[in-house]
Amino acid sequence: MNKTQSKLLTSLKAIIENNQDFILFTHSNPDGDAIGSILAFYYLLEELNKTPTIYMNNSIPYFYEFLVKKELRIVKDVNRKYKVGIVFDSGDKNRISETFDIKEKVEILVNIDHHPTNNNFGDINIVDPKAASVTEILYEIIRKLKYEISLNVAECILTGLITDTGSFRFSNTSYKSLKIASDLVKKGANISKISKEIYEKRRMSSLKLMGISLSRLQLYKNIGWSFIEEEDLKNNNASYEDIEGIIDLLRTLREADIVVLFYPYNKERIKVSLRSKKDKIDVGKLALKFGGGGHKEAAGFQINRNEINSYQDFIKKIDEYINSDEWVFTYK
Amino acid sequence: MNKTQSKLLTSLKAIIENNQDFILFTHSNPDGDAIGSILAFYYLLEELNKTPTIYMNNSIPYFYEFLVKKELRIVKDVNRKYKVGIVFDSGDKNRISETFDIKEKVEILVNIDHHPTNNNFGDINIVDPKAASVTEILYEIIRKLKYEISLNVAECILTGLITDTGSFRFSNTSYKSLKIASDLVKKGANISKISKEIYEKRRMSSLKLMGISLSRLQLYKNIGWSFIEEEDLKNNNASYEDIEGIIDLLRTLREADIVVLFYPYNKERIKVSLRSKKDKIDVGKLALKFGGGGHKEAAGFQINRNEINSYQDFIKKIDEYINSDEWVFTYK
Repeated sequence: MNKTQSKLLTSLKAIIENNQDFILFTHSNPDGDAIGSILAFYYLLEELNKTPTIYMNNSIPYFYEFLVKKELRIVKDVNRKYKVGIVFDSGDKNRISETFDIKEKVEILVNIDHHPTNNNFGDINIVDPKAASVTEILYEIIRKLKYEISLNVAECILTGLITDTGSFRFSNTSYKSLKIASDLVKKGANISKISKEIYEKRRMSSLKLMGISLSRLQLYKNIGWSFIEEEDLKNNNASYEDIEGIIDLLRTLREADIVVLFYPYNKERIKVSLRSKKDKIDVGKLALKFGGGGHKEAAGFQINRNEINSYQDFIKKIDEYINSDEWVFTYK
Repeated sequence: MNKTQSKLLTSLKAIIENNQDFILFTHSNPDGDAIGSILAFYYLLEELNKTPTIYMNNSIPYFYEFLVKKELRIVKDVNRKYKVGIVFDSGDKNRISETFDIKEKVEILVNIDHHPTNNNFGDINIVDPKAASVTEILYEIIRKLKYEISLNVAECILTGLITDTGSFRFSNTSYKSLKIASDLVKKGANISKISKEIYEKRRMSSLKLMGISLSRLQLYKNIGWSFIEEEDLKNNNASYEDIEGIIDLLRTLREADIVVLFYPYNKERIKVSLRSKKDKIDVGKLALKFGGGGHKEAAGFQINRNEINSYQDFIKKIDEYINSDEWVFTYK
C-alpha cells in the first residue's frame, strides 16, 4: 500500500466513523459485482450500527436475490440530501441515473471502482484498475480498516469476484483474486451454493433461446455468429433478461476468434453483442466504430434495423473492419 | 500431516530416488484430472532425470492436447516389466486395462487417488478423498518432497484442479483448492489460457448437439430431461466425445432438482447421464439401482434399448424411485 492509498483509507475511515447517514449507488442494470459490492457495504455499515440506504431504479435481478438476507432500505428515487454517498462499479457518475445528478444529492461523494476509464468524479476516489472486481477492492479496504468480514459480507464479496472473473476463467483472475476467494471460503462462504445460484437458475425460456441460437450458429472465416428474432422471444415467453449469457456459450466454438450475437433491442433497434477470444482482436474498439463500447474481450452496440441488410452481410463488414489496415486491432 | 502420511511420503521419496524406470497409468477415457496428474508426474520425473513412460490405450483427448509440451514416451501396450508403476485417479486397478493386470507389469505399484471407494490396491497407497482432484494431492506431495514445481507441472496441476471442481463451482472446492490455484497462478500458470483451452474449444458438431438437446428439454415435476438420437450424431457429423458437457448445460435449468440425458451408446444400448442439483438426491445411488455408478452429484448407467418403452415413461419411473419410501435418497 502506498502513501496515497493509505491517506485515502484514513479519510474513508473518518467518513464512516463520523457519519450516520449513507446512500449507496451503483450503475443501472446491475451485474453481480454491482450487487455484490453495494450489498457488502450495506451489511458492513449496518454491522457498524450505521443507517445505509440503497438507491436502485431497477429491482435486484433474480440471479442475485439469494444475497438479500433481510429487508433492505431501498429507494427508487432520491428525495432528500444524504451526508455520504458511495458509488460502486461505475466509471462515470452518469451511469447511475438519467434523472438526477448524484453529486447534488450528497455532501461527500466516495467513488470505489475498478474501471480503467474511471474519471475520478468523487470527493474520495478509490480506483484500482488491476482489481478483478470492485468486491476485491472492498475486501482489501475492509481488511485494512480492520473491520470484521461477516459471513453475509463474505458471500457478497465472493459473488462479485465469481461473476466478474467468470468463475476464475477470465484473464483478470490474479493470484490475489484466488487468494481472496480462498480466505472467504475459509470464513464459511459457500462457493458451490453461490455458483449454483448464479449459474444454475436459468429459466426454461432462456434455455430455449440458447437452443435456438446454437441451432443457427454459423462460422464465417474466424467469426462465429448467430441471431435471435423478436418472435423467438414471443414464442418462448422470454424476456431480454433471458438473453444474458448466451453469447458466452457461443464463444465456446473452437474455430471462432470472435463471436457476434444479434438480438432485438426494441422495434427500431437491434443489439449486437461481441466477444473476442484472441488477444489481438479488441472488440471494444470494434464496438466503438459502431457507436458502442466495452472492453477488449466483451463489448456491444446498437444499430437501426434498416442499417442491416442481412446479418450475413453485416458479418462480412465486421470481417472487413477486423482485417482493414486503417483499423489495427492490436491490443497494447 | 500425520505419521502415516509422513511415512508414506518417505517411502515414495525413496522409490523415486532409487529407481530410474517408471510407468505411469490412469483410467481409460481420461478426464482433465487423469491427464493433468499423469503429465504432471511425467514432467516431474523427467526434470529429476528419470525415464518415465506413459501407458495410454486411448489418445489424449483434444481438450487437453495443449498440456503436451514435448514428445512423450507413450505406449499403447505394456510388453515388458517396469521397476515402478504409478497409478493416478483410479479407484480400482481394473479401470486401467481390460487386457492385462497392471500388478503383473511392475515390481512396485504406487496408487495415488482421491476416490472414497479406492480399494488400496497398490504397494504404496496415497489416497485422500478430501482432495478436490488428484493433482491437488500431487501438489502437496511435490511440495512436501521439496521438489521444484516447474511451469509445465504447475499448468498440469491447475488443469486437474479446474476440471474436477468445474472451475471452482462444485462442492468439492475447498479453501485449500483455491489457495493452491492461487500459488500456481503466482508461479506463472496461465489460468485464463487453460480455461479457454478447456471450455472454449467446442467443435461446431458439439454445439449443434447442445442446441438439439436444449430444444428438446422438458420438465417432468422436478426432473429436467432431454435426449440425443443416433441420427442426430450422423446428421451433425458428431462423435461421442461431442456429447461431453451437454448434461452440465442442461443442469442450469432453474426448476430442475435432477437432470437426465439419454444418448446412444451402441446399437443395443442407451446411455443415461444423471446430475443432481439437490443435496438430498443422490444420483450415485439412483444409478446403482440400474447397474451403473458414480457420485452423489454426477452419475450414469447404460440400459438396453428394448427396456425403454418411451423416454417419458422412463422419467416417470425415475421419479417414482426418487419418491419411493424404500429408496431414500438422503445423503449421509
